[in-house]
Amino acid sequence: MARPRLSEATRNLLLQEGVASFLVQGYHGTGIKQVLDQARVPKGSFYNYFKSKEDFGAAAIQHYASCFGEEMTRVMTGAPDPVTGLRSFFETLMGQFEASGYAGGCLIANLGGELEGSEVCREAIAEAFGDWHKATTDALREGQSLGLVRKDVEAAELAHLLIEAWEGAVIRMKVERSLAPLRRVVARLIDDYFSPADQG
Amino acid sequence: MARPRLSEATRNLLLQEGVASFLVQGYHGTGIKQVLDQARVPKGSFYNYFKSKEDFGAAAIQHYASCFGEEMTRVMTGAPDPVTGLRSFFETLMGQFEASGYAGGCLIANLGGELEGSEVCREAIAEAFGDWHKATTDALREGQSLGLVRKDVEAAELAHLLIEAWEGAVIRMKVERSLAPLRRVVARLIDDYFSPADQG
Repeated sequence: MARPRLSEATRNLLLQEGVASFLVQGYHGTGIKQVLDQARVPKGSFYNYFKSKEDFGAAAIQHYASCFGEEMTRVMTGAPDPVTGLRSFFETLMGQFEASGYAGGCLIANLGGELEGSEVCREAIAEAFGDWHKATTDALREGQSLGLVRKDVEAAELAHLLIEAWEGAVIRMKVERSLAPLRRVVARLIDDYFSPADQG
Repeated sequence: MARPRLSEATRNLLLQEGVASFLVQGYHGTGIKQVLDQARVPKGSFYNYFKSKEDFGAAAIQHYASCFGEEMTRVMTGAPDPVTGLRSFFETLMGQFEASGYAGGCLIANLGGELEGSEVCREAIAEAFGDWHKATTDALREGQSLGLVRKDVEAAELAHLLIEAWEGAVIRMKVERSLAPLRRVVARLIDDYFSPADQG
């Protein structure tokens, strides 16, 4: 039997539909059949691309994290300094959330909260957090060397606090249907707590 | 036909099993049959207590929030001051998370992230956040009047930041299987940013 011809475009389409559905209906609320229908891909081909729903979930998390990372790099590269870059990136995310009517939120937070018992997905989520944390730490460390961020707390520690507070705020945003929790994270942490003026 | 006899104990048992299952398997991953089996309640009686799975979900969120609120009140009442009370309450939660092997986490964060499209459940989650925010604001405001908390930022604003950062940290805890994110929220926010010494 000939090996089925796999297309990178079809795989990406399935991942895009998967991300969209996982975001709004959660992991357990998403059916593979529905994803295939949305992507107009015949049912039989799913298992040529993914071993299982769990494998597909992990790949969707990686796909989401990769798009997120590319967007962050794009925004940060165009910014005059890394702290302005972080603010712009959060503004970009807020704009997207507002445009979608506060639906969806962040796949990493949603599946991090929902999923239990899938080691493959847990590792994909941990890696997504790790990449995001690394990029944020780099930005804050550069901010410290430029005198834009307090130096008495490790950049890595500030970055952890920032992304964890952001993730909780995204959940609150979904519930309250308001950007206020997200604006608060930027105002209280980046603009105030992280400011060199607050240095002890 | 006689109206079925409803028992408060059976209702509470169903809610307890619902909370346990929603915590670990999420809303969509939880089946009503499984909850009934766990609670050893005959299938037919479910609809005497709840109109639908959605109605059951909202009641489970209220049940969880009510237990959470009672525990917070209990810990806060026994504390020498409200800031020590908040720290003790978070320590209590950390002890529970550690004992459960970092499984489950917080129902409010998990369902806040997963659920979309259920207005009834969204309102129940918003109310749970609201009650928690009110109790935390009261504690921080009393802390301000005692000189234990900075006064240049509204207690309500600090309380929002604290519970949102905590919720994000609970999700990170689940993914990393570590209390470090939770300890960070206490150390960075309560012990540092909220401290009167940091007052601008």
